[in-house]
Amino acid sequence: MKHRPLPRALAATVALFAVAFLSIPSFPHDLGAQRVSQVEPGSVLEFGTMWTFDAPPMEYWETRYDFDVTREWLDHLRLSAIRLPGCSSSFVSEDGLVMTNHHCARGCIAAVSPEDRDYMELGFVAASRAEELSCPGVYVDQLVAIGDITEDIRSRVSASDPAERAAQRDEALGEIREGCEAGSGLRCQVVPLYNGGMYSLYRYRRFNDVRLVMAPELQAAYFGGDPDNFTYPRFDLDVTFLRVYENGEPYQPEHWLTWSEAGAVEDEPIFVVGNPGSTGRLLTVAQMEYLRDVEYPARLAGYDQRLEVLYAYTAAHPDELRTYQNTIFGTENSKKATTGYLRGLLDDGIMARKHAFEEDFRTRIQSDRELNALYGSAWQDIADAQLELATFATQARYYGLNGSTLPARALALVQYVEQASRPEAERHPAFQGEGLERARAALLRDRPLNLGLEEMQLAAWLEAARDQLGTADPLVRSLLGARTPQAAARRLVDESQLVTLADRTRLLEGGEAAIAGCTDPLVLAVRELAPTAQSYANRVEQLNDVIAANTERLGRAIYEAYGTALPPDATFTLRISDGVVKGFPYNGTIAPSKTSFYGLYARSAEFDGQPPFDLTQKWIDAEDRLDLSAPVNFVSTADIIGGNSGSPVVNRAGEVVGLVFDGNIEMLPNRFIFTDEVSRTVSVHSVAIIEALRKVYFAEHIANELQGAGR
Amino acid sequence: MKHRPLPRALAATVALFAVAFLSIPSFPHDLGAQRVSQVEPGSVLEFGTMWTFDAPPMEYWETRYDFDVTREWLDHLRLSAIRLPGCSSSFVSEDGLVMTNHHCARGCIAAVSPEDRDYMELGFVAASRAEELSCPGVYVDQLVAIGDITEDIRSRVSASDPAERAAQRDEALGEIREGCEAGSGLRCQVVPLYNGGMYSLYRYRRFNDVRLVMAPELQAAYFGGDPDNFTYPRFDLDVTFLRVYENGEPYQPEHWLTWSEAGAVEDEPIFVVGNPGSTGRLLTVAQMEYLRDVEYPARLAGYDQRLEVLYAYTAAHPDELRTYQNTIFGTENSKKATTGYLRGLLDDGIMARKHAFEEDFRTRIQSDRELNALYGSAWQDIADAQLELATFATQARYYGLNGSTLPARALALVQYVEQASRPEAERHPAFQGEGLERARAALLRDRPLNLGLEEMQLAAWLEAARDQLGTADPLVRSLLGARTPQAAARRLVDESQLVTLADRTRLLEGGEAAIAGCTDPLVLAVRELAPTAQSYANRVEQLNDVIAANTERLGRAIYEAYGTALPPDATFTLRISDGVVKGFPYNGTIAPSKTSFYGLYARSAEFDGQPPFDLTQKWIDAEDRLDLSAPVNFVSTADIIGGNSGSPVVNRAGEVVGLVFDGNIEMLPNRFIFTDEVSRTVSVHSVAIIEALRKVYFAEHIANELQGAGR
Repeated sequence: MKHRPLPRALAATVALFAVAFLSIPSFPHDLGAQRVSQVEPGSVLEFGTMWTFDAPPMEYWETRYDFDVTREWLDHLRLSAIRLPGCSSSFVSEDGLVMTNHHCARGCIAAVSPEDRDYMELGFVAASRAEELSCPGVYVDQLVAIGDITEDIRSRVSASDPAERAAQRDEALGEIREGCEAGSGLRCQVVPLYNGGMYSLYRYRRFNDVRLVMAPELQAAYFGGDPDNFTYPRFDLDVTFLRVYENGEPYQPEHWLTWSEAGAVEDEPIFVVGNPGSTGRLLTVAQMEYLRDVEYPARLAGYDQRLEVLYAYTAAHPDELRTYQNTIFGTENSKKATTGYLRGLLDDGIMARKHAFEEDFRTRIQSDRELNALYGSAWQDIADAQLELATFATQARYYGLNGSTLPARALALVQYVEQASRPEAERHPAFQGEGLERARAALLRDRPLNLGLEEMQLAAWLEAARDQLGTADPLVRSLLGARTPQAAARRLVDESQLVTLADRTRLLEGGEAAIAGCTDPLVLAVRELAPTAQSYANRVEQLNDVIAANTERLGRAIYEAYGTALPPDATFTLRISDGVVKGFPYNGTIAPSKTSFYGLYARSAEFDGQPPFDLTQKWIDAEDRLDLSAPVNFVSTADIIGGNSGSPVVNRAGEVVGLVFDGNIEMLPNRFIFTDEVSRTVSVHSVAIIEALRKVYFAEHIANELQGAGR
Repeated sequence: MKHRPLPRALAATVALFAVAFLSIPSFPHDLGAQRVSQVEPGSVLEFGTMWTFDAPPMEYWETRYDFDVTREWLDHLRLSAIRLPGCSSSFVSEDGLVMTNHHCARGCIAAVSPEDRDYMELGFVAASRAEELSCPGVYVDQLVAIGDITEDIRSRVSASDPAERAAQRDEALGEIREGCEAGSGLRCQVVPLYNGGMYSLYRYRRFNDVRLVMAPELQAAYFGGDPDNFTYPRFDLDVTFLRVYENGEPYQPEHWLTWSEAGAVEDEPIFVVGNPGSTGRLLTVAQMEYLRDVEYPARLAGYDQRLEVLYAYTAAHPDELRTYQNTIFGTENSKKATTGYLRGLLDDGIMARKHAFEEDFRTRIQSDRELNALYGSAWQDIADAQLELATFATQARYYGLNGSTLPARALALVQYVEQASRPEAERHPAFQGEGLERARAALLRDRPLNLGLEEMQLAAWLEAARDQLGTADPLVRSLLGARTPQAAARRLVDESQLVTLADRTRLLEGGEAAIAGCTDPLVLAVRELAPTAQSYANRVEQLNDVIAANTERLGRAIYEAYGTALPPDATFTLRISDGVVKGFPYNGTIAPSKTSFYGLYARSAEFDGQPPFDLTQKWIDAEDRLDLSAPVNFVSTADIIGGNSGSPVVNRAGEVVGLVFDGNIEMLPNRFIFTDEVSRTVSVHSVAIIEALRKVYFAEHIANELQGAGR
């Protein structure tokens, strides 16, 4: 029953591709192109195209692109691609030059900036290798091998008690990892795929000497800022070059990507090699319904509550707008993303497709007696847990006291003192080892608190708590009572003993006696509400464990029912995704497959050069030198998500044609189901990189290195 | 109970404006701007801002813009604005220069093109007045006076029988119009406002000598073509200049609009003066539900059916794509518009607002015994009629036999012969007077028929009829029987006697005997189905009469309940709408309030200069001369609809700052309710017109005339 051959849905899809792809007309001559999607409902492609390098869909590529992918081609891409913490990147020269996104290298750029020069604002070009600046703490990992260790792990798990099984499994994972690393000089990672349905062992070679070579200024690298984030048409030079060194010399990699002369061309197949972070495509319908009906609406209400307070506060204190602008942008950005995820879950068409898959999957499992006994109840167990969670999720959230700074401090303080009084072994895991010291340090961090804003946030939080929990709820009774939210908030701030560092230190050092005698109203409330809060927290933890255990069961079931024909959910490990360069229907018309430097200057001019659409003098001066019709960004149907930032985009020849840095707003629902009608990966065009290096940054030497001049 | 004072909703709104407007932050510094809308739910502004010149909202303008509008200012705008057939325009120089859209002047441009020069393709600039070309049949109307004749008409309508009342009213309308025109040299128009709740008499001075002065080539005037139609950001120079002559000399108008130096500026109040064609803002909820549930879905299905056939046909015959491209574009365009209307009706928020208004309106009427007796039943009467229509709308549509050419010809032929055999007085009104000859001419028009395409269209139509009417329906039984749609369509084409002009002439001249002996399968079917078809058609006509009579009752009721505080639905007569120049949230980010020449070159380059994004050599050559950052198009919150094309946009000084030519895609639902969150009027910026005249078309003399150089 395991590793079934290609399921029928895929077979049908592959056949369809052969027809559908040949008939794709090109933009803009025929709007009919908009009607062609590669992802037929019921196709396995609904689970995306984030293929692992040990289970690449060779036949599908052959059928779809008439492209006979070889093992060597794949190995070359795998070894050229390297992982940065949280991001993706690749070797792009024989001298170890590494290409990634500017937004993946901000930490390094800030860290290497001297006191008097902010390279984030100014940009940076090392005129020679001697001037390349070491990025502190930055490393890159090259994936040298992948092995399937599923059987190995299964064979070491023999117990029948679930807790004992988990312990056996964790031990096996640890042993395997340690055995892998011992003496090899490699970093090893056990990667659970299909929620633990399959285990792979990834071996990495790590490089610890990484230096900054070139970074544009933020205005160019993040042109359009938060408003344009997650969108397309787009005009960002979100690129940065690093270099890997070994023994103080530029590293000479065996594998690195050469540069395409033309760059990405409309309708051509492309491949993205990188590390997608996490997707939720294997979630059950019950899990998605929970996100749709409970989790996301609550998050969005929270963002709105925060934004309303911030808008009102900064409207009343315009001089402080600058201080809070980033917080506002960040919150608006989270709201944008969550709204996009929710939109996907609210889309009847998408949910119908998820229902259809679950039906097919359940039928496959339930029609096999053995599989049914092992996995048949998993959906219902998850659904039951989600339903119970939904009944008290609101309470659990408010009792977590994370509406603003003071309640969070009160909770942290009471918890710290209580945990610190226990012997190490009896503490909650979060307070064991270094955890206790971290909690203490967090409480003693001396950060000024804006009491006016805090009071507004508290009032908004109390008002929302009252509306949602009702006036009879103990938390509402304790913190609000008969007061208005405004009056209650004022009292909590006025009577607070958690504002100054001195006060907090006194309470913290005073231990349980100090807490017992403390009259801070929030500390009193935390102590009073502790039993209720604890019971909510415990039940949340138990239910989450149930859900985790059952998603793992389903992961095995998926693997048993479909084999590796379904790409596993993203795990921030190396994947290769295929797609084509292609515009899409947008705003009542069509978005072009690429944007241009004309468009960059247009968007700046159309906002009168106001931030975040401002250009530095470098760019203003460079206008006459640039080929304004040259492509800046482009879109493709490749399948990406956070973590893919910095992934190279290559053509069939394995040459760099672009650099992934974002998805369009229509891509957000792809978290749950892959679609390619309008969702697009947004990349910097390789031509734009050369054009900017040569004509804006006068970094001819880097452009030459990329283009292999003199090779 | 009549002419109530400003209803409370408006009073509240006006007060809100004072606060809301002052707090509008400007793009892009504060995204919060997106949250500000002038149209609060329940505000009378939901009925739009298409104000008549005899009931301008002076107080509202004063409150909202701090702008004290004078009678003189309004008269000046009214007399400067002139109406073109189907469009709007205005005098823009002391020598009778007229500005309108290129798309309003296409008929003239084509008509004045000599055999060897197509001015649509080439553009046209008259180097001197002597070269200005007379537009055959084109006239413009200047609105010289407006009078309220409601009481006059009411006083002449005394009968109690509805039919008699209608006859009395029509007679009164005719007399008033004739009396108005007699000897005055003016054209008079009786304008029923509020569906006949109020009657106004509009007097026009007509100018019959109109000449073409300047027109850009179609590529610039309609840049982006159908894909970009109804959208923004946009880059169209949709402008044409005409000149009014009198006695062979340029007319010197007393009133004409001067040219603003800066043009439209973000956040400034602007006014649009023009002739909006028709809106449906006073429709009842039942009428909108009918459109939403019956009419629009059927239309969309029809568009899709036609498009599918056209896509398939042109895919199989790529050499004929050019022949059908315009039909495809036009159908896609209708689909785009209808989809937009439907989206509005499917929007729960919009429908809730329409429900709320109807509730308020009904309560006002029903709480007054006298008004209730007169109007109280109108909503239910309309709803009943719409519900009954819905029960057989599908049948009525198919029995209309308008799926393709041959069935329509069969029906027209049988009807013509039948009607022609009767005495004039017994004929259907459509066949009385010149109607009979028109019907005959239409049948004898010698247009080649593409039989392959006809067969595909017939098959698609038969298939849809079968699916929707069922196999037991007489029409389906008669035309399809046991055949497949394809086989049935082939038979109808193969056995047709309606293809050639000779055949049609023979049948037509042969009269009833020829028809009785005709074995054309469609003619046989038409005769067989005639009784059923007639009964559907009769009932549709009856129900539409009921609806028309009751919407007129409601029109009076609205006028009695709200007076002229609610602007009446559009009537293709002169209105003035106010708004501000303002970007809007779009595509996950923000659209700027203006676009630029950079953007024009960008959009062309990003589609590799392919049609409809191609530029003529003139524009390619002009790039270096143009200020690329100059504005091309801009958006405002003014309220427009079809008919407003060519309306001047003026600032508080009454100067031209732009030229209306379109709305964005988000504006389509404004047909039913005015909103200003994201819906925008799209105009050519006055600066773009001067820039293009001087630097692209070398028409310095026209630019100088507009800018009043030497005055």
